[in-house]
Amino acid sequence: MNILIKIVYDGTNFYGFQYQPDKRTVENELTLGIQNTIKEKTKIYYAGRTDRGVHALGQYANFKSDTTIDIGNLPRVINYNLPEDVSVIGAKYVDDDFHARFSAKKKKYRYVVYRSRYRNALLCNRAYEYPFDLNIEKMRTSMNYLLGEHDYNSFMGRNAIVKDTIRSIDSVDIIENRNFLYFDFVGKSFLKNMIRIIVGTALEIGNGRFSELHMKEVLDKKNRKAAGPTAPSCGLYLLDVEY
Amino acid sequence: MNILIKIVYDGTNFYGFQYQPDKRTVENELTLGIQNTIKEKTKIYYAGRTDRGVHALGQYANFKSDTTIDIGNLPRVINYNLPEDVSVIGAKYVDDDFHARFSAKKKKYRYVVYRSRYRNALLCNRAYEYPFDLNIEKMRTSMNYLLGEHDYNSFMGRNAIVKDTIRSIDSVDIIENRNFLYFDFVGKSFLKNMIRIIVGTALEIGNGRFSELHMKEVLDKKNRKAAGPTAPSCGLYLLDVEY
Repeated sequence: MNILIKIVYDGTNFYGFQYQPDKRTVENELTLGIQNTIKEKTKIYYAGRTDRGVHALGQYANFKSDTTIDIGNLPRVINYNLPEDVSVIGAKYVDDDFHARFSAKKKKYRYVVYRSRYRNALLCNRAYEYPFDLNIEKMRTSMNYLLGEHDYNSFMGRNAIVKDTIRSIDSVDIIENRNFLYFDFVGKSFLKNMIRIIVGTALEIGNGRFSELHMKEVLDKKNRKAAGPTAPSCGLYLLDVEY
Repeated sequence: MNILIKIVYDGTNFYGFQYQPDKRTVENELTLGIQNTIKEKTKIYYAGRTDRGVHALGQYANFKSDTTIDIGNLPRVINYNLPEDVSVIGAKYVDDDFHARFSAKKKKYRYVVYRSRYRNALLCNRAYEYPFDLNIEKMRTSMNYLLGEHDYNSFMGRNAIVKDTIRSIDSVDIIENRNFLYFDFVGKSFLKNMIRIIVGTALEIGNGRFSELHMKEVLDKKNRKAAGPTAPSCGLYLLDVEY
């Protein structure tokens, strides 16, 4: 059977998602945990990679297995074989040709900003703490320039290896919730650091350093140097993947 | 001047609140952080102690100091002298006779239960994960027996040293919020482990092991053995203190 699982992790103490031979990564732990559960070596496909320090509330993986473990019990048994900062929160059977990465239609990311003059110890590594004034409407307007298909070269982290830098953003919502500001992104795929660089640029606009139009100017320049700083990884969550 | 500060901490990696000579406690870190900030030794009074693993979103402390640091900047400067799992989120001047413990009128605690069949890695050490069915209305009814002034001996942790076990609970609210269940307690003071034992007992009632009346029976027995298990410390938050 082809099994799809939904995964949550706290990215703080991982060297990112992707497998590395000598480092503690989410993929290393998951692959070990799954194989120790089903007692066989199997290839595991993941929906996407996340950078070091980025969290997930909805990462996905699929693998083929003839395990006799009840599908409703499977998350619990895998969790028993995982460290406390990563867990499986769902499992179901999918068609044989389902692939966690290639079958993904949309990915949803949330960037969490905590607006406060003083840091909050319970949000350490869980949000980007931003103490300065922000004009939310200005940031919303600036985001409109990014919607649709564009060359996002300006918003790509250095040293990224990709064939092309054309991507498409379906929507960006900026949601105020008490002291929190959520930047919700939906798109098929994103370049390395793309969301974090967009947020870093938007915050410079919101704080009054640039006008709304700055976002379009940055986009048009197709040069990383034109954009703002990369917002810290601890504010970013892979929320969900739509199949 | 007499200065009152509001404090947040993640209790996970502390041996509780109270000062211990050779252990990492919240009081040890705060006292050091404050004294290193104001560059003088001063007696610091805290609103209350919390057990090992318990968190705070609203702990308070006061101390006398002639520091010239601007009161609006003081939290930031103290935070610079604190580790990342404890922080100051507010400061103000109070009357000379104000005392963080003795001036407290009410304390508000929240116990957070996460209801899910599978554990969630992002809630590790932040909530009590409870996978079984719960009858919320039954738990609400059972809590009514606890309101007002009573001898809460049945709900006191063993080895606690107190003159008397009479306390008064002003209110208990059980709030459903998506997968979360909050038990909100308000009272002047609570016995050691009291809230965690009440929650442990309520969950046994909610899960159908006992009737609503069981809570009254436990209360009347004035014996710790009559009550349910002590719910884990990681679900408990000192939310605020009312002065």
